[in-house]
Amino acid sequence: MDFSSFVTSLGTSFLLFVVFMLLFAWVSGKPENHVIYYPNRILRGLSPTPRTRNPLSWVKEAYSSTEDDIISLSGVDSAVYFVFLSTAFTMLVVSGIALLPSLLPISITDHSIRLENTTSNGTFSELDKFSMGHIGKGSPRLWAYLIAVYWVSLATYYLLWKAYKHVSEIRATALVSPEVREAQFAVLVRDIPVPLEGESRKEQINSYFKAIYPDTFYRSMVVTDNKEVNKIWEELEKYRKKLATAEAVYAQSKTIGMPEGTKPTNRTGFLGLCGKKVDTIDYCNEKITELSSKLEAEQKVTLREKQVGSALVFFTNRVNAASAAQSLHARMVDTWTVMDVPEPHQLIWRNLSLNYYEREVRKYTIYFVVALIIFFFMIPIAIISASTTLQNLVKLLPFIKPIVEIAAVRTVLEAYLPQIALIVFLALLPTMLMFLSKAEGIPSESHAVRAASGKYFYFIVLNVFIGVTIGGSLYDNFKEFQHNPTGIADTLARNLPDNATFFLTFVALRFFVGYGLELSRLVPLIIFHLKKRYLCKTEAEVKEAWAPGDFRYATRFPADMLILTVTLCYSVIAPLIIPFGAVYFGLGWIVMRNQALKVYVPTFESYGRMWPHIHSRFLAALVLYQVTMVGYFGLRLFPYGALVIPLPIMSLIFAFVCNKKFYRFFKHTALEVACRDLQENPNMERVYDSFCPPCLNSDKLYDHVGDA
Amino acid sequence: MDFSSFVTSLGTSFLLFVVFMLLFAWVSGKPENHVIYYPNRILRGLSPTPRTRNPLSWVKEAYSSTEDDIISLSGVDSAVYFVFLSTAFTMLVVSGIALLPSLLPISITDHSIRLENTTSNGTFSELDKFSMGHIGKGSPRLWAYLIAVYWVSLATYYLLWKAYKHVSEIRATALVSPEVREAQFAVLVRDIPVPLEGESRKEQINSYFKAIYPDTFYRSMVVTDNKEVNKIWEELEKYRKKLATAEAVYAQSKTIGMPEGTKPTNRTGFLGLCGKKVDTIDYCNEKITELSSKLEAEQKVTLREKQVGSALVFFTNRVNAASAAQSLHARMVDTWTVMDVPEPHQLIWRNLSLNYYEREVRKYTIYFVVALIIFFFMIPIAIISASTTLQNLVKLLPFIKPIVEIAAVRTVLEAYLPQIALIVFLALLPTMLMFLSKAEGIPSESHAVRAASGKYFYFIVLNVFIGVTIGGSLYDNFKEFQHNPTGIADTLARNLPDNATFFLTFVALRFFVGYGLELSRLVPLIIFHLKKRYLCKTEAEVKEAWAPGDFRYATRFPADMLILTVTLCYSVIAPLIIPFGAVYFGLGWIVMRNQALKVYVPTFESYGRMWPHIHSRFLAALVLYQVTMVGYFGLRLFPYGALVIPLPIMSLIFAFVCNKKFYRFFKHTALEVACRDLQENPNMERVYDSFCPPCLNSDKLYDHVGDA
Repeated sequence: MDFSSFVTSLGTSFLLFVVFMLLFAWVSGKPENHVIYYPNRILRGLSPTPRTRNPLSWVKEAYSSTEDDIISLSGVDSAVYFVFLSTAFTMLVVSGIALLPSLLPISITDHSIRLENTTSNGTFSELDKFSMGHIGKGSPRLWAYLIAVYWVSLATYYLLWKAYKHVSEIRATALVSPEVREAQFAVLVRDIPVPLEGESRKEQINSYFKAIYPDTFYRSMVVTDNKEVNKIWEELEKYRKKLATAEAVYAQSKTIGMPEGTKPTNRTGFLGLCGKKVDTIDYCNEKITELSSKLEAEQKVTLREKQVGSALVFFTNRVNAASAAQSLHARMVDTWTVMDVPEPHQLIWRNLSLNYYEREVRKYTIYFVVALIIFFFMIPIAIISASTTLQNLVKLLPFIKPIVEIAAVRTVLEAYLPQIALIVFLALLPTMLMFLSKAEGIPSESHAVRAASGKYFYFIVLNVFIGVTIGGSLYDNFKEFQHNPTGIADTLARNLPDNATFFLTFVALRFFVGYGLELSRLVPLIIFHLKKRYLCKTEAEVKEAWAPGDFRYATRFPADMLILTVTLCYSVIAPLIIPFGAVYFGLGWIVMRNQALKVYVPTFESYGRMWPHIHSRFLAALVLYQVTMVGYFGLRLFPYGALVIPLPIMSLIFAFVCNKKFYRFFKHTALEVACRDLQENPNMERVYDSFCPPCLNSDKLYDHVGDA
Repeated sequence: MDFSSFVTSLGTSFLLFVVFMLLFAWVSGKPENHVIYYPNRILRGLSPTPRTRNPLSWVKEAYSSTEDDIISLSGVDSAVYFVFLSTAFTMLVVSGIALLPSLLPISITDHSIRLENTTSNGTFSELDKFSMGHIGKGSPRLWAYLIAVYWVSLATYYLLWKAYKHVSEIRATALVSPEVREAQFAVLVRDIPVPLEGESRKEQINSYFKAIYPDTFYRSMVVTDNKEVNKIWEELEKYRKKLATAEAVYAQSKTIGMPEGTKPTNRTGFLGLCGKKVDTIDYCNEKITELSSKLEAEQKVTLREKQVGSALVFFTNRVNAASAAQSLHARMVDTWTVMDVPEPHQLIWRNLSLNYYEREVRKYTIYFVVALIIFFFMIPIAIISASTTLQNLVKLLPFIKPIVEIAAVRTVLEAYLPQIALIVFLALLPTMLMFLSKAEGIPSESHAVRAASGKYFYFIVLNVFIGVTIGGSLYDNFKEFQHNPTGIADTLARNLPDNATFFLTFVALRFFVGYGLELSRLVPLIIFHLKKRYLCKTEAEVKEAWAPGDFRYATRFPADMLILTVTLCYSVIAPLIIPFGAVYFGLGWIVMRNQALKVYVPTFESYGRMWPHIHSRFLAALVLYQVTMVGYFGLRLFPYGALVIPLPIMSLIFAFVCNKKFYRFFKHTALEVACRDLQENPNMERVYDSFCPPCLNSDKLYDHVGDA
């Protein structure tokens, strides 16, 4: 890519960004769009309107908001996300301030390589002047680059250490809070052995825990297999919704001149397309009555007969719950496993019934599957695209035959089918990884998000970054590296400089277009208006149509980490990338701050448990960078380049020390934190009820049947 | 070694064993020797005499004793040691029953190799007929050996699994015991931060724990730096002992015709050799008065000013103490570290003052030092022996000059000096490893023993076994392996068969002579009688002279493990070794049973915490064996030998699963075990006092000053 096309691409992206900004300023002011631009405020009962009509007022608001605002409006997890953004931003600014004024002049004034290298990469670009590749081999000027690598690394250590400490404090402050939080009073007990003859599960669990915690044990809730009852309950909910819609339609039809109105009808067959035509309201009422009694019967059966070997155990005291979750209860680790419980609504009930061995086997199987996906993801795509040739498609879907016979369409389709397969695969990947993470048997939604985010990080960094750099999938390269194990760093180092401009453009595109779209919320806006006009009949449906969703950390973090990895790896080789990276994280901080304050509604709160993951992946990116630099100095024939070798080792020691010092508090609740006084005595009845799954929650049935 | 010399050596060993047995039967019956052969029973107030005069009655007694007898007379740790012995024995018997009748005929009837191999190792021995080396290369008969490897491995997995389960039960039963055990009511708190201005340590600790455990916190004992006070106390004790001796001597001298007696005297100078001559009794009394007041002053200073950031915290309840030791108390792992406390007398007080970072740094430094010792132990010995030439010795010790000048002595000395250096090094090694383990900052004696035993195991297996087999120290071989990393298994496999006879003799020597000496206790007997006659004046001194000591696990386990490793590695290559190994562990079981019941007095009780170490080292030996077999099958050009490769992987998975399932209970006390009712309410005053170090224990001074 030469200089002019680089400028063109940058300009286009910037133009798009300006358009998005203007659009946002214009559209977000209109009251009918407030539900798209201020849903978080609306849902919390705050006024949605901005104070001024200044189109940039949101920047000021975002900038002046404090961490406490974020925590109160969007939770600890969001605050931790901003710590990550600001750490990355500060790191890049600190690096940029030192590296740009020192390294750029050094490389521009070096003319030793121009002659030999001019034609090597086809086109010589003006941008190459600013990069390390412009320095002659073995030149003493490389000392400056060596020092730069140390500068970036040491700055990262310092900032990450500070950030870990800060996040630890945020977490402690949130956990210390005198508010009653249900999850702090309960623990999850799994792998309960088969009870003795004539003893119910409930009795077994109660007597076990009463013996250990005679004073603070409150009661227990035996987990049941809710698959059946949940299915019925969901069907019932569907009909209730349908009934509400039908009644709204009926009421609407009444007002227009015709006082008796038209009763809505539907067909009972497949997708409402065929079958008998019935009155929807009557039909739904009938179905609801039928399902209600079915539900009640199934609820009783579930509670009586479908108990599994897990339970939620409640304590009247936070300290005991916190220490129980950390202590070994039974002699064998595979019985009476006690662990922290997440918030009630993020419990994944169907995973609670898995026993220890199932969980372990699933976990390692899924690690293996994910490793296969990461290394060999090109293979299934190749197979899919090989089998989805046009001939096969025509056989499957005969009606497309006439279209396919047009020569032009045929050519295009044949050329793009493999790419389409790849795009579909990549689009489905996060969902697939989330599904796999949940299949591991993880009991909480937020933990599953962390697990999926970790998997996606490895996929994206390994395949996108290394893949683009070296070309081809990891598997192809892996075959080559088998013969020469130290070759990975070399190959990466050899190929990095050629791709500097590509990644510069990539980062710029990501922040201009990515954050432009994010802020202007064009897609949700359009979808909302379409839904509102054509689909929504009731208030609830409208509300559902503008529901903003949450941050989707599972894909957001890995995407940010990719930018961070790219910027870090190029920071010394092509320092021009640093300002781009800094803008990405700086702009991201401002835009996401706005989104956190006004748009997204968190679905769970894990009190910053995401941080250790971010921290270790940040360090993984740093190690990748340091290893690449070892290889690159080798290629530049700079003998003192070996001085970089201690850096990856230092990073590993740093990771080890941080892990030792901070991690345990992120895994468990420290007792000194849990022992603070509460605002009020917890209403244990309410705490207990909050954990009842909705499908079992009618008339406190659970309660009474459960107490055998 | 040819067949006849093998038989000679075996015969000699057996003869020695018979002599030891007869000696034991004769000497142990004499009442004046009872303190040597029954000290454990005497100290527990049981009758020392055996019931019959039958010289083999001890075998019956040992054999018929139950595990409960062992636990009550010698503690859980001994019982666990017997589980190890019987597991190794059963494993070898099970292997022998299958392997001997099948493999021996197969190798004897194979004649394919005799011709080619007859002269290869210098002398062809009859014993080689029974080994795998006798089978022709690539012969299908090797299938039998392949199956044998699987048989031995599977038997080991099964037996180890059963043993781990059994030991886990023994531990649980012991911990459940309704007796009040002091250590179960206390925890050790380290890394306490600096208290606030105007707050004493005691107040700080009490308020911290009272907040978390308002109902069950009893009180705390701040750890002090006792170095000074301990020195004074030890000196005081020395003089008290001396006084008692002097008084005994004086009293003795009175009875013999001279009613006023002779007052014993001594010189006050160096070693009692020079200086002023004084009356011992007066001198000691004077010194005791002087030191007592000094001790009292120092005690006060210590308690007031030498408090360190550690404390023992007492609870009125076992469950809380057990769960506190497992829970995270502070947000940062490097403050308020809470851990289990060992029995009072095995607390290593001087290690309690080390903080988190000192402990971590020491630990890794010592790991590094030990690794150096294991790999390069030949180097310091070479240096020492190079510097301890005769010339240097003469310079150092001029008085040996006349002796050295005799030609014969000179030759012998010059030839043996390096070996003497090696022997001295090997003799000092266990002490050195124990010292290093304690220097890690481990707070309990039993833990230090485990750590030292682990270090010694690696040294002995790597250097003795691999060293003898391949020849030369690890370092020499390591240089070779650098060029060919897969060569270790090959080299080991190539060299093993040549040393089969050597190790057969070695094992035989170990059990005949080793257990003969162990049972007959010749050395302690002689030392005791010498001491009694020439040194002991008081009852206390006599008692000290026959004090039997404990099992010395730190060297006993590694020695047993060496035999086990040797037997395992040869089990298929030269199955003749199996009966020898079986006899070693069988005889060991009987002999040590006798020693546990009658002789040794355990100095600590760790409730079987040794087992996970034994288990993982047992598996390490198995993996070494399996890897060797992979190499050996390769050498025998047997293509299906690759089928052995899954075995080491299986072993690692087995180790991982066992670790997951059982280990946590050995690290911590399970709460279901701690919550059992006690026989009586614990006398907390007594529990607290038992932890006072003896040097601070006068007049409960500790108690009162401590409570600021």
